[in-house]
Amino acid sequence: MHGAVMDIGPYTFDQFKEKAKEFHGFPAPGLMLGAYMVEYAKTLMPEDAVYDAVVETGKCLPDAVQLLTMLSVGNNWMKVVDLGRYALSLYDKQTGAGWRVYVDPAKLKEWPLIESWLLKTVPKKEQDTEALLAQIQAAGHTVCSSQPIQIHSRFLEPAEKRDIVLCPQCGEYYPLQHGNVCRGCQGSELYNHRG
Amino acid sequence: MHGAVMDIGPYTFDQFKEKAKEFHGFPAPGLMLGAYMVEYAKTLMPEDAVYDAVVETGKCLPDAVQLLTMLSVGNNWMKVVDLGRYALSLYDKQTGAGWRVYVDPAKLKEWPLIESWLLKTVPKKEQDTEALLAQIQAAGHTVCSSQPIQIHSRFLEPAEKRDIVLCPQCGEYYPLQHGNVCRGCQGSELYNHRG
Repeated sequence: MHGAVMDIGPYTFDQFKEKAKEFHGFPAPGLMLGAYMVEYAKTLMPEDAVYDAVVETGKCLPDAVQLLTMLSVGNNWMKVVDLGRYALSLYDKQTGAGWRVYVDPAKLKEWPLIESWLLKTVPKKEQDTEALLAQIQAAGHTVCSSQPIQIHSRFLEPAEKRDIVLCPQCGEYYPLQHGNVCRGCQGSELYNHRG
Repeated sequence: MHGAVMDIGPYTFDQFKEKAKEFHGFPAPGLMLGAYMVEYAKTLMPEDAVYDAVVETGKCLPDAVQLLTMLSVGNNWMKVVDLGRYALSLYDKQTGAGWRVYVDPAKLKEWPLIESWLLKTVPKKEQDTEALLAQIQAAGHTVCSSQPIQIHSRFLEPAEKRDIVLCPQCGEYYPLQHGNVCRGCQGSELYNHRG
Protein backbone atom coordinates (compact mmCIF):
# COMPACT_ATOMS: atom_id res chain seq x y z
CA MET A 1 0.00 0.00 0.00
CA HIS A 2 2.65 2.50 1.07
CA GLY A 3 5.79 1.33 -0.68
CA ALA A 4 8.43 -0.83 0.96
CA VAL A 5 7.74 -2.85 4.06
CA MET A 6 9.58 -1.58 7.10
CA ASP A 7 11.80 -3.72 9.28
CA ILE A 8 11.74 -3.39 13.06
CA GLY A 9 15.29 -2.38 13.91
CA PRO A 10 17.41 -5.47 13.26
CA TYR A 11 14.35 -7.71 12.79
CA THR A 12 11.97 -8.41 9.98
CA PHE A 13 8.31 -8.18 10.92
CA ASP A 14 8.07 -11.97 11.08
CA GLN A 15 11.21 -12.32 13.19
CA PHE A 16 9.86 -9.81 15.68
CA LYS A 17 6.54 -11.67 15.73
CA GLU A 18 8.49 -14.68 17.00
CA LYS A 19 10.25 -12.63 19.67
CA ALA A 20 6.88 -11.21 20.72
CA LYS A 21 5.42 -14.69 21.01
CA GLU A 22 8.32 -15.90 23.15
CA PHE A 23 8.22 -12.99 25.57
CA HIS A 24 4.63 -11.78 25.56
CA GLY A 25 2.79 -15.02 24.80
CA PHE A 26 1.48 -13.91 21.42
CA PRO A 27 2.24 -11.28 18.76
CA ALA A 28 -0.25 -8.77 20.09
CA PRO A 29 -1.15 -6.01 17.60
CA GLY A 30 -0.21 -3.40 20.21
CA LEU A 31 3.21 -4.93 20.62
CA MET A 32 3.84 -5.03 16.88
CA LEU A 33 2.74 -1.41 16.42
CA GLY A 34 4.69 -0.49 19.55
CA ALA A 35 7.83 -2.01 18.09
CA TYR A 36 7.69 0.41 15.16
CA MET A 37 7.12 3.26 17.61
CA VAL A 38 10.18 2.35 19.69
CA GLU A 39 12.41 2.04 16.64
CA TYR A 40 11.13 5.38 15.32
CA ALA A 41 11.81 7.08 18.66
CA LYS A 42 15.34 5.66 18.65
CA THR A 43 16.07 7.24 15.26
CA LEU A 44 15.10 10.66 16.66
CA MET A 45 17.67 10.55 19.46
CA PRO A 46 21.28 11.68 18.90
CA GLU A 47 23.45 8.70 18.13
CA ASP A 48 25.54 8.95 21.31
CA ALA A 49 22.60 9.65 23.64
CA VAL A 50 22.24 7.56 26.78
CA TYR A 51 18.52 7.53 27.34
CA ASP A 52 15.71 6.29 29.54
CA ALA A 53 12.08 5.73 28.56
CA VAL A 54 8.68 6.60 29.90
CA VAL A 55 5.65 4.80 28.52
CA GLU A 56 2.20 6.36 28.81
CA THR A 57 0.23 3.12 28.85
CA GLY A 58 0.64 -0.24 30.56
CA LYS A 59 -0.82 -2.10 27.60
CA CYS A 60 1.65 -3.91 25.32
CA LEU A 61 3.87 -0.90 24.57
CA PRO A 62 6.14 -1.45 27.62
CA ASP A 63 7.07 -4.86 26.23
CA ALA A 64 8.12 -3.32 22.91
CA VAL A 65 10.49 -1.05 24.85
CA GLN A 66 11.81 -3.98 26.86
CA LEU A 67 12.42 -6.11 23.77
CA LEU A 68 14.09 -3.42 21.67
CA THR A 69 16.16 -1.53 24.24
CA MET A 70 18.11 -2.35 27.39
CA LEU A 71 15.46 -0.52 29.40
CA SER A 72 13.15 -2.58 31.60
CA VAL A 73 10.76 -2.26 34.49
CA GLY A 74 13.21 -4.15 36.72
CA ASN A 75 16.23 -1.97 36.00
CA ASN A 76 14.00 1.09 36.30
CA TRP A 77 15.34 2.67 33.13
CA MET A 78 11.79 2.36 31.78
CA LYS A 79 8.96 3.96 33.74
CA VAL A 80 5.32 3.24 33.06
CA VAL A 81 2.91 6.07 33.91
CA ASP A 82 -0.60 5.09 32.91
CA LEU A 83 -2.00 8.12 31.12
CA GLY A 84 -4.03 5.87 28.84
CA ARG A 85 -2.35 7.25 25.71
CA TYR A 86 -0.54 5.05 23.21
CA ALA A 87 2.73 6.97 23.43
CA LEU A 88 6.27 6.71 24.68
CA SER A 89 9.17 9.09 25.17
CA LEU A 90 12.89 8.55 25.18
CA TYR A 91 14.94 11.17 27.01
CA ASP A 92 18.58 11.84 27.73
CA LYS A 93 19.41 10.61 31.25
CA GLN A 94 21.45 13.75 31.96
CA THR A 95 19.57 16.59 30.32
CA GLY A 96 16.03 15.21 30.19
CA ALA A 97 15.68 16.30 26.56
CA GLY A 98 14.09 13.79 24.23
CA TRP A 99 11.36 12.78 21.83
CA ARG A 100 7.80 11.61 22.28
CA VAL A 101 6.18 9.33 19.71
CA TYR A 102 2.41 8.95 19.77
CA VAL A 103 -0.34 7.46 17.67
CA ASP A 104 -1.78 10.36 15.68
CA PRO A 105 -5.57 10.10 15.26
CA ALA A 106 -5.46 12.04 11.96
CA LYS A 107 -2.97 9.58 10.45
CA LEU A 108 -5.12 6.60 11.39
CA LYS A 109 -7.83 7.54 8.91
CA GLU A 110 -6.08 5.61 6.12
CA TRP A 111 -5.85 2.47 8.23
CA PRO A 112 -9.39 1.54 9.26
CA LEU A 113 -8.43 -1.76 10.90
CA ILE A 114 -5.80 -0.14 13.11
CA GLU A 115 -8.24 2.60 14.01
CA SER A 116 -11.08 0.22 14.91
CA TRP A 117 -8.69 -1.96 16.91
CA LEU A 118 -7.41 1.01 18.90
CA LEU A 119 -10.92 2.33 19.47
CA LYS A 120 -12.20 -1.18 20.27
CA THR A 121 -15.20 -0.63 18.04
CA VAL A 122 -15.03 -4.20 16.70
CA PRO A 123 -15.60 -7.01 19.23
CA LYS A 124 -12.43 -9.06 19.66
CA LYS A 125 -14.13 -12.20 18.33
CA GLU A 126 -14.94 -10.47 15.05
CA GLN A 127 -11.48 -8.94 14.67
CA ASP A 128 -9.55 -10.18 11.63
CA THR A 129 -6.17 -10.33 13.33
CA GLU A 130 -4.20 -11.33 10.24
CA ALA A 131 -5.58 -8.39 8.26
CA LEU A 132 -4.96 -6.06 11.20
CA LEU A 133 -1.34 -7.20 11.49
CA ALA A 134 -0.91 -6.70 7.75
CA GLN A 135 -2.07 -3.08 8.13
CA ILE A 136 0.28 -2.58 11.06
CA GLN A 137 3.16 -3.95 9.01
CA ALA A 138 2.27 -1.79 6.02
CA ALA A 139 1.79 1.35 8.09
CA GLY A 140 4.81 1.00 10.36
CA HIS A 141 5.45 4.20 12.26
CA THR A 142 3.62 6.34 9.71
CA VAL A 143 0.52 6.32 11.95
CA CYS A 144 2.57 8.19 14.54
CA SER A 145 3.74 11.72 15.03
CA SER A 146 6.62 12.92 17.19
CA GLN A 147 7.40 15.96 19.27
CA PRO A 148 10.42 17.11 21.26
CA ILE A 149 9.95 16.88 25.02
CA GLN A 150 11.67 17.87 28.20
CA ILE A 151 11.01 15.25 30.86
CA HIS A 152 9.88 16.45 34.28
CA SER A 153 12.86 17.02 36.55
CA ARG A 154 11.61 14.45 39.07
CA PHE A 155 12.65 11.73 36.60
CA LEU A 156 16.24 12.97 36.67
CA GLU A 157 16.73 12.99 40.43
CA PRO A 158 18.97 10.26 41.82
CA ALA A 159 17.09 7.58 43.75
CA GLU A 160 16.93 8.49 47.42
CA LYS A 161 19.03 6.44 49.79
CA ARG A 162 16.69 4.08 51.61
CA ASP A 163 17.17 2.61 55.07
CA ILE A 164 16.17 -1.04 55.04
CA VAL A 165 14.75 -2.23 58.36
CA LEU A 166 12.67 -5.08 59.77
CA CYS A 167 8.94 -4.53 59.76
CA PRO A 168 7.79 -5.03 63.37
CA GLN A 169 4.54 -6.55 62.15
CA CYS A 170 5.42 -9.08 59.38
CA GLY A 171 9.12 -9.41 60.24
CA GLU A 172 10.33 -8.81 56.70
CA TYR A 173 12.70 -6.13 55.43
CA TYR A 174 11.25 -2.92 53.99
CA PRO A 175 12.35 0.71 53.40
CA LEU A 176 11.79 2.76 56.54
CA GLN A 177 10.77 5.68 54.31
CA HIS A 178 7.48 3.82 53.73
CA GLY A 179 6.43 4.28 57.38
CA ASN A 180 6.59 2.59 60.77
CA VAL A 181 5.34 -0.69 59.36
CA CYS A 182 5.74 -1.84 55.76
CA ARG A 183 3.16 -1.00 53.13
CA GLY A 184 2.00 -4.60 53.14
CA CYS A 185 1.09 -4.28 56.81
CA GLN A 186 -0.40 -0.81 56.27
CA GLY A 187 -3.12 -2.55 54.25
CA SER A 188 -2.18 -2.93 50.62
CA GLU A 189 -5.23 -4.93 49.55
CA LEU A 190 -2.88 -7.36 47.87
CA TYR A 191 -4.02 -10.53 49.62
CA ASN A 192 -7.27 -11.62 51.21
CA HIS A 193 -5.28 -14.13 53.16
CA ARG A 194 -1.70 -15.16 53.78
CA GLY A 195 -0.91 -18.54 55.33
CA MET B 1 28.89 -24.49 51.21
CA HIS B 2 25.42 -26.00 51.06
CA GLY B 3 25.86 -29.01 48.81
CA ALA B 4 25.13 -28.99 45.10
CA VAL B 5 24.82 -25.81 43.10
CA MET B 6 21.28 -25.12 41.97
CA ASP B 7 20.31 -24.46 38.38
CA ILE B 8 17.79 -21.76 37.53
CA GLY B 9 15.03 -23.68 35.79
CA PRO B 10 16.44 -24.77 32.44
CA TYR B 11 19.54 -22.56 32.84
CA THR B 12 22.81 -22.90 34.66
CA PHE B 13 23.73 -19.92 36.82
CA ASP B 14 26.19 -18.70 34.17
CA GLN B 15 23.69 -19.12 31.34
CA PHE B 16 21.14 -17.07 33.23
CA LYS B 17 23.80 -14.43 33.91
CA GLU B 18 24.08 -14.04 30.15
CA LYS B 19 20.31 -13.74 29.74
CA ALA B 20 20.25 -11.16 32.53
CA LYS B 21 22.99 -9.14 30.83
CA GLU B 22 21.13 -9.17 27.51
CA PHE B 23 17.79 -8.05 28.94
CA HIS B 24 18.65 -6.05 32.04
CA GLY B 25 22.05 -4.62 31.06
CA PHE B 26 24.01 -6.51 33.71
CA PRO B 27 23.61 -9.56 35.95
CA ALA B 28 22.29 -7.60 38.90
CA PRO B 29 22.47 -9.51 42.21
CA GLY B 30 18.76 -8.88 42.74
CA LEU B 31 17.93 -10.40 39.39
CA MET B 32 20.04 -13.50 40.05
CA LEU B 33 18.48 -14.02 43.50
CA GLY B 34 15.09 -13.22 42.01
CA ALA B 35 15.53 -15.94 39.40
CA TYR B 36 15.86 -18.56 42.14
CA MET B 37 12.77 -17.12 43.81
CA VAL B 38 10.69 -17.35 40.64
CA GLU B 39 11.77 -20.93 39.96
CA TYR B 40 11.01 -21.86 43.57
CA ALA B 41 7.55 -20.32 43.37
CA LYS B 42 6.87 -22.23 40.16
CA THR B 43 7.62 -25.55 41.88
CA LEU B 44 5.00 -24.76 44.53
CA MET B 45 2.18 -24.35 42.00
CA PRO B 46 0.15 -27.34 40.77
CA GLU B 47 1.58 -28.57 37.50
CA ASP B 48 -1.49 -27.66 35.44
CA ALA B 49 -2.07 -24.27 37.06
CA VAL B 50 -2.50 -21.25 34.80
CA TYR B 51 -1.13 -18.46 36.92
CA ASP B 52 -0.44 -14.74 37.08
CA ALA B 53 2.16 -12.98 39.22
CA VAL B 54 2.30 -10.05 41.56
CA VAL B 55 5.69 -8.65 42.55
CA GLU B 56 6.07 -6.60 45.72
CA THR B 57 9.02 -4.49 44.56
CA GLY B 58 9.93 -2.70 41.35
CA LYS B 59 13.62 -3.45 41.82
CA CYS B 60 15.07 -6.24 39.65
CA LEU B 61 12.60 -8.95 40.69
CA PRO B 62 10.05 -8.07 37.97
CA ASP B 63 12.68 -8.83 35.34
CA ALA B 64 13.27 -12.31 36.81
CA VAL B 65 9.54 -12.98 36.40
CA GLN B 66 9.59 -11.65 32.85
CA LEU B 67 12.59 -13.77 31.87
CA LEU B 68 11.40 -17.02 33.44
CA THR B 69 7.66 -16.96 32.75
CA MET B 70 5.37 -15.73 29.99
CA LEU B 71 4.14 -13.02 32.35
CA SER B 72 5.14 -9.43 31.62
CA VAL B 73 4.23 -5.86 32.45
CA GLY B 74 2.96 -5.34 28.90
CA ASN B 75 0.65 -8.35 28.81
CA ASN B 76 -0.53 -7.46 32.31
CA TRP B 77 -0.15 -11.01 33.60
CA MET B 78 2.48 -9.62 35.98
CA LYS B 79 1.51 -6.78 38.28
CA VAL B 80 4.04 -4.75 40.24
CA VAL B 81 2.78 -3.29 43.51
CA ASP B 82 5.61 -1.52 45.29
CA LEU B 83 5.39 -2.65 48.89
CA GLY B 84 9.18 -2.45 49.20
CA ARG B 85 9.46 -6.14 50.11
CA TYR B 86 11.60 -8.56 48.16
CA ALA B 87 8.77 -10.98 47.47
CA LEU B 88 6.56 -12.29 44.71
CA SER B 89 3.42 -14.38 44.48
CA LEU B 90 2.08 -16.64 41.79
CA TYR B 91 -1.67 -17.27 41.87
CA ASP B 92 -4.17 -19.26 39.89
CA LYS B 93 -5.93 -16.94 37.42
CA GLN B 94 -9.31 -18.51 38.20
CA THR B 95 -9.29 -19.18 41.93
CA GLY B 96 -6.72 -16.65 43.16
CA ALA B 97 -5.01 -19.33 45.28
CA GLY B 98 -1.26 -19.39 45.14
CA TRP B 99 2.11 -19.12 46.83
CA ARG B 100 4.18 -16.22 48.04
CA VAL B 101 7.98 -16.48 48.16
CA TYR B 102 9.89 -13.91 50.20
CA VAL B 103 13.39 -13.29 51.46
CA ASP B 104 13.42 -14.51 55.05
CA PRO B 105 15.55 -12.32 57.34
CA ALA B 106 16.29 -15.26 59.66
CA LYS B 107 17.69 -17.34 56.81
CA LEU B 108 19.99 -14.54 55.69
CA LYS B 109 22.13 -14.83 58.80
CA GLU B 110 24.31 -17.50 57.18
CA TRP B 111 24.93 -15.35 54.13
CA PRO B 112 26.49 -12.10 55.29
CA LEU B 113 27.16 -10.72 51.82
CA ILE B 114 23.58 -11.21 50.71
CA GLU B 115 22.35 -9.65 53.93
CA SER B 116 24.60 -6.60 53.69
CA TRP B 117 23.70 -6.15 50.02
CA LEU B 118 19.96 -6.26 50.79
CA LEU B 119 20.36 -3.91 53.74
CA LYS B 120 22.70 -1.65 51.74
CA THR B 121 25.07 -1.47 54.67
CA VAL B 122 28.11 -1.67 52.39
CA PRO B 123 28.63 1.22 49.92
CA LYS B 124 28.25 -0.01 46.34
CA LYS B 125 31.87 0.89 45.54
CA GLU B 126 33.14 -1.39 48.28
CA GLN B 127 30.82 -4.27 47.36
CA ASP B 128 32.63 -7.41 46.19
CA THR B 129 30.15 -8.32 43.48
CA GLU B 130 31.81 -11.58 42.47
CA ALA B 131 31.78 -12.85 46.06
CA LEU B 132 28.17 -11.69 46.46
CA LEU B 133 27.09 -13.52 43.31
CA ALA B 134 28.91 -16.63 44.56
CA GLN B 135 26.86 -16.51 47.77
CA ILE B 136 23.66 -16.01 45.79
CA GLN B 137 24.52 -19.02 43.64
CA ALA B 138 25.39 -21.13 46.67
CA ALA B 139 22.30 -20.11 48.62
CA GLY B 140 19.76 -20.33 45.80
CA HIS B 141 16.23 -20.13 47.17
CA THR B 142 17.27 -21.33 50.62
CA VAL B 143 17.29 -17.72 51.82
CA CYS B 144 13.56 -17.63 51.14
CA SER B 145 10.44 -18.89 52.82
CA SER B 146 7.05 -19.45 51.27
CA GLN B 147 3.45 -19.19 52.35
CA PRO B 148 0.12 -19.97 50.71
CA ILE B 149 -1.86 -16.90 49.69
CA GLN B 150 -5.24 -15.93 48.39
CA ILE B 151 -4.90 -12.95 46.09
CA HIS B 152 -7.28 -10.04 46.61
CA SER B 153 -10.39 -10.45 44.51
CA ARG B 154 -9.73 -7.19 42.65
CA PHE B 155 -6.93 -8.98 40.79
CA LEU B 156 -9.40 -11.54 39.44
CA GLU B 157 -11.95 -9.14 38.01
CA PRO B 158 -12.05 -8.89 34.22
CA ALA B 159 -10.67 -5.64 32.85
CA GLU B 160 -13.44 -3.09 32.50
CA LYS B 161 -14.55 -2.22 29.00
CA ARG B 162 -13.10 1.19 28.19
CA ASP B 163 -14.52 3.74 25.75
CA ILE B 164 -11.70 5.26 23.75
CA VAL B 165 -12.34 8.86 22.76
CA LEU B 166 -10.45 11.93 21.55
CA CYS B 167 -9.11 14.21 24.27
CA PRO B 168 -10.51 17.67 23.53
CA GLN B 169 -7.29 19.25 24.80
CA CYS B 170 -4.36 17.29 23.27
CA GLY B 171 -6.34 15.63 20.49
CA GLU B 172 -5.07 12.12 21.24
CA TYR B 173 -7.08 9.02 22.09
CA TYR B 174 -7.61 8.12 25.76
CA PRO B 175 -10.08 6.10 27.88
CA LEU B 176 -13.09 8.24 28.75
CA GLN B 177 -13.13 6.55 32.18
CA HIS B 178 -10.09 8.71 33.05
CA GLY B 179 -12.17 11.91 32.93
CA ASN B 180 -13.27 14.67 30.58
CA VAL B 181 -9.72 15.26 29.41
CA CYS B 182 -6.93 12.69 29.41
CA ARG B 183 -4.68 12.23 32.43
CA GLY B 184 -1.83 13.87 30.53
CA CYS B 185 -3.90 17.05 30.21
CA GLN B 186 -5.13 16.75 33.81
CA GLY B 187 -1.52 17.46 34.84
CA SER B 188 0.53 14.33 35.09
CA GLU B 189 3.87 16.01 35.83
CA LEU B 190 5.40 13.88 33.12
CA TYR B 191 6.86 16.65 31.01
CA ASN B 192 8.07 20.16 31.74
CA HIS B 193 7.59 20.90 28.12
CA ARG B 194 6.24 19.32 24.95
CA GLY B 195 7.09 20.79 21.58
